[in-house]
Amino acid sequence: MKLASLKHGRDGRLVVVSRDLAWYMDARVITPTMQGALDNWSAVEPKLRSLADALERGAADRKPFVAQECAAPLPRAYHWVDGSAYIVHVELVRKARGAEVPATFYTDPLVYQGGSDDMLGARDPILATSEDLGIDLEAEVAVVTDDVPMSTTAIEAEKHIKLVMLVNDVTLRNVIPAELAKGFGFYQGKPSTAFSPVAVTPDELGDAWDGGKVSLPLVSHVRGKPFGKPNAGIDLTFDFRQLIAHVSRTRKLGAGTIVGSGTVANRNHEQVGSSCLAEVRCIETIRDGKASTPFLKFGDTVHIEMMDSAGRSIFGAIEQTVTKA
Amino acid sequence: MKLASLKHGRDGRLVVVSRDLAWYMDARVITPTMQGALDNWSAVEPKLRSLADALERGAADRKPFVAQECAAPLPRAYHWVDGSAYIVHVELVRKARGAEVPATFYTDPLVYQGGSDDMLGARDPILATSEDLGIDLEAEVAVVTDDVPMSTTAIEAEKHIKLVMLVNDVTLRNVIPAELAKGFGFYQGKPSTAFSPVAVTPDELGDAWDGGKVSLPLVSHVRGKPFGKPNAGIDLTFDFRQLIAHVSRTRKLGAGTIVGSGTVANRNHEQVGSSCLAEVRCIETIRDGKASTPFLKFGDTVHIEMMDSAGRSIFGAIEQTVTKA
Repeated sequence: MKLASLKHGRDGRLVVVSRDLAWYMDARVITPTMQGALDNWSAVEPKLRSLADALERGAADRKPFVAQECAAPLPRAYHWVDGSAYIVHVELVRKARGAEVPATFYTDPLVYQGGSDDMLGARDPILATSEDLGIDLEAEVAVVTDDVPMSTTAIEAEKHIKLVMLVNDVTLRNVIPAELAKGFGFYQGKPSTAFSPVAVTPDELGDAWDGGKVSLPLVSHVRGKPFGKPNAGIDLTFDFRQLIAHVSRTRKLGAGTIVGSGTVANRNHEQVGSSCLAEVRCIETIRDGKASTPFLKFGDTVHIEMMDSAGRSIFGAIEQTVTKA
Repeated sequence: MKLASLKHGRDGRLVVVSRDLAWYMDARVITPTMQGALDNWSAVEPKLRSLADALERGAADRKPFVAQECAAPLPRAYHWVDGSAYIVHVELVRKARGAEVPATFYTDPLVYQGGSDDMLGARDPILATSEDLGIDLEAEVAVVTDDVPMSTTAIEAEKHIKLVMLVNDVTLRNVIPAELAKGFGFYQGKPSTAFSPVAVTPDELGDAWDGGKVSLPLVSHVRGKPFGKPNAGIDLTFDFRQLIAHVSRTRKLGAGTIVGSGTVANRNHEQVGSSCLAEVRCIETIRDGKASTPFLKFGDTVHIEMMDSAGRSIFGAIEQTVTKA
């Protein structure tokens, strides 16, 4: 089943989307919003699946699905926590500045809590006040949970994963060094985050989903050119089950919690590229002594998408243009 | 005007509370939830104030207000960002471990983004899996905003402050060193946060509110004994206007954003005490070479309250007992 929130008020309007992303049907008669569906998932899911089945059979009242009309699947959320599961990314960033990766990074997940009151739709602009902030993309995968009890184990965590989607975790690179130096993590350096038009139930991923990760390339283009296609199922130190166990250790998670993977990165980045400009700049620094690829400028575009084994878009594309606020 | 959310479903039921905290009236006919009120504040506020006026005149359908029935004013919120505005607290913590306070801490606010999907009511237990986590209170003041545009100045920020309340920013001290060492800030070390029974509009604070801070003692008791009464209007490096300007620098804030002050602390802590056990332990370490006051154990109680100049409770009391999860 594929779900989206069309732009409508603060919380969007829940719709069921056809597998081929061509059509949608309004889910208002079942529940008006995505958050409402997640709050009551076990009761609502079967009804939404019935609607999705009707849509696949070509229901008469279907309407053309247009990604431009989409808000984020959760236009605002109560919890957005982003991991850094692809340690290759961390290794490259550290190596470029001559630092070691602490040994604990391979056993203890690194996460940060992000702002969730203003999630961006897939085609919303990336708004920034200045190019000097060092505007960057981070292409990621994320899952949405139902209610997760405190101290849930990784094994138990799997059943709490209800939806999967793509993320552009927009990052302001030039804000971050001073911010991290203060010791409390990111805040200003992580402005509003964007999500794919559609969130899908894990079964839509077929064999590419093993209960904790998506084994498919995450394809990104920057400024209209191919940028990266690392496989989200390779070279991750922690999968979503392990991330959920980590983030629920000392507290429960509310329905609609979004857990991100962190920037997807593979060891063979020379073949598959990267998912953020910072990583490319680190590779350049290690190789050439200095970074040559600039961060995003006003007017630059970012495109993030994931295709199934037959080449069909699963989540629709995140397509954003950097725009002066 | 004083508002509260009685426990009801996930988002509570909005009520108007009398100035003396003795009575309430249901606000359901105006808007069912606190978040709903904040989403549409300019339209809803006059209606809520009319109801509050009727309540003060002794409306017939008023009911006895019982703090035990309260959820957090926002039982779940889309944005909870906590500052560290009382630099005295930071100075003591650093001094105890032989570290300097970076010069930027006096000009650039330190904030962290907290979990907001599971806010605790004023009388809810502090749930923890083990006493070994180093369970601590942090008594604070917080404000709730309406929609705040990106790059709002401190002067403009004042008008976005709609409500004021008290906070117990529960902290797991023994989790934090390893977590901060990873460089991304707090996550597991900051479990669910508790709030006062009532949130009040700034005008309820009278002369104690100057548009950016509350100049009254924040009174806390731990294990039934007086613990601290530092004045929340003294020794803060940044007021709420400045914190809002900081947190809106690179992104807008959604209606219902909660901005915390950080642990309230005064320079004359020998006279007024502290607002968290960690600070007491730092003072002991500086004075005696080692900390002697233990963190909270199962069964220990925490009481946080603020009285007006006539000794009347403004927000009602946060009264929590530490309980094994």
